[in-house]
Amino acid sequence: MFLASDEEIRSYIDLNTETVQIIEDAFTSLVTKNVEMPPIMRVDIPAHNGEVDVKTAYVKGLDYFAIKVSSGFFDNYKLGLPSGNGLMMLLNSQTGQPESLLLDNGYLTDIRTAAAGAVVAKHFAKEDARIAGVIGTGSQARYQIKAIAQVRKIERVLVYGRKEENIQRYIDDMEVDLGIKVEAVRAEEAVRGSDILVTTTPSTSPVIKADWLHSGLHITAMGSDAESKQELESEILEQVDVLACDRKEQSQVLGELRHATSQQEMLDKAVEIGEVTSGDKQGRKTAEQITLCDLTGTGVQDTAIAIYAYELLQEEKAGLVVKQ
Amino acid sequence: MFLASDEEIRSYIDLNTETVQIIEDAFTSLVTKNVEMPPIMRVDIPAHNGEVDVKTAYVKGLDYFAIKVSSGFFDNYKLGLPSGNGLMMLLNSQTGQPESLLLDNGYLTDIRTAAAGAVVAKHFAKEDARIAGVIGTGSQARYQIKAIAQVRKIERVLVYGRKEENIQRYIDDMEVDLGIKVEAVRAEEAVRGSDILVTTTPSTSPVIKADWLHSGLHITAMGSDAESKQELESEILEQVDVLACDRKEQSQVLGELRHATSQQEMLDKAVEIGEVTSGDKQGRKTAEQITLCDLTGTGVQDTAIAIYAYELLQEEKAGLVVKQ
Repeated sequence: MFLASDEEIRSYIDLNTETVQIIEDAFTSLVTKNVEMPPIMRVDIPAHNGEVDVKTAYVKGLDYFAIKVSSGFFDNYKLGLPSGNGLMMLLNSQTGQPESLLLDNGYLTDIRTAAAGAVVAKHFAKEDARIAGVIGTGSQARYQIKAIAQVRKIERVLVYGRKEENIQRYIDDMEVDLGIKVEAVRAEEAVRGSDILVTTTPSTSPVIKADWLHSGLHITAMGSDAESKQELESEILEQVDVLACDRKEQSQVLGELRHATSQQEMLDKAVEIGEVTSGDKQGRKTAEQITLCDLTGTGVQDTAIAIYAYELLQEEKAGLVVKQ
Repeated sequence: MFLASDEEIRSYIDLNTETVQIIEDAFTSLVTKNVEMPPIMRVDIPAHNGEVDVKTAYVKGLDYFAIKVSSGFFDNYKLGLPSGNGLMMLLNSQTGQPESLLLDNGYLTDIRTAAAGAVVAKHFAKEDARIAGVIGTGSQARYQIKAIAQVRKIERVLVYGRKEENIQRYIDDMEVDLGIKVEAVRAEEAVRGSDILVTTTPSTSPVIKADWLHSGLHITAMGSDAESKQELESEILEQVDVLACDRKEQSQVLGELRHATSQQEMLDKAVEIGEVTSGDKQGRKTAEQITLCDLTGTGVQDTAIAIYAYELLQEEKAGLVVKQ
């Protein structure tokens, strides 16, 4: 059994063109290859404001597949702990034997989620997008903007959050990390003023109003990944010119598509990212279109990033091998 | 993160009165406590005759809950490997943080599955049961008989299997382990000649015929745990006086109840083990009744055995503590 610690994984794996490409290929495989991806397993622990998801996907022909456990316990800040956590394991596709445990404390989930944001921006945001807006100031609010900066020349960031101190910390950190201007704005301004907007909150009622949309805007909605969550007014699904999601069967249960007034119509309208990355369908067609992509997070991303991390760490011999 | 290896776990945890009691209490908690037990997650890899199950259950008030991965890859024998494998992890119920990894290669699943068989025999088999029959010669065919011997004074075992060499190995091993006579018989004789019968095969068509049932018999059907599996003719469900299962919502999808001709009627007839262990309902009422219990395996058993193993191993300081 190959074990890798959080530190080891963080020293070798990052958000970069390589990990973005790996996640793009994973989306493509979802529509071009034989993939078994069962529904997400979920445990809710309301007493501690906690939730645990288990995701998996087997891509036919690959030597391994991942089972990923990720948790979000939103009272952890009271204990001085991060809300997110988790680990990934790889099983051998031929024998079922556990091959590797990646004790990443949720880091690889952050990377593969951010990488999905980059893939989406690449195919759906307009070519000359320069201003990125972000709703939320947490971990993914940072990663998603860094991801967009991988594929578009971002010159300014507009951020909206609820807590003053979190906003200021976000601005300080991101101005250093990206070397560009980051401004605190109201939610409406973040939408009206940006070319690409990312929503990253666990909100249970819409934060973004349909009235605020404008020509050329792309929205990536990655906050909602559970029945109770919703970041966008449902009219937005109808108003956008291009509606996309990572996986229809997840989005209609856990994502923004769940809240569509006419769900079947929206499912018919929607394309999956993999249909676009594979070249089957087109993402954005003109600079004027309004586009939206809803991300719920897929097991095939976990399998892709876990195999990449395992193989890289093996090469680097950075893992701690525990003989069983 | 606390890690324990297969060897460490095997040196401290066994099938005994303590583990049987722990599993009995787990079944009771399923009906008396607030338990969140989502549907089993399953990945099928038909190319390698493999299947992976993920199970979990959170019992309100417990400090930890388990997520258990178990695999069965039935071509592994060609590679000289066991078919079953897996591991358990415990998460902290308050923070979601991974607390412990029990790298048991499926051993704790064997123990908690056998312990369930003991609990069932205790409540459903007649008091003076002396002859146990078993269908199958694999790992659970051994554990289930040892489990029954924990709660009934078994004097003779009748075994039916398909492969001569496996039957002989079973007899040799079990006569040494239990110190009683083990005889190879036909399936029909195993049923007709036993007081308690356990079926342990992954059969996809019925092995046990309704015609073979007799007064006083108890059957534990633990082989079927997937849509395609079935060990008992469906008429048996109707014929028995007492019909039980570990969890109705699992048995009706994955177990023998799936194949009931009139499923709603059988669901109404069935009791859950926890209803009996809690004292709410009665198991066997008379020595003459025919009783049947269908086991599909529940996440609450995994949580119970994993917490027990973790706490015991911590006490014994036998675990290898890896600082993260």
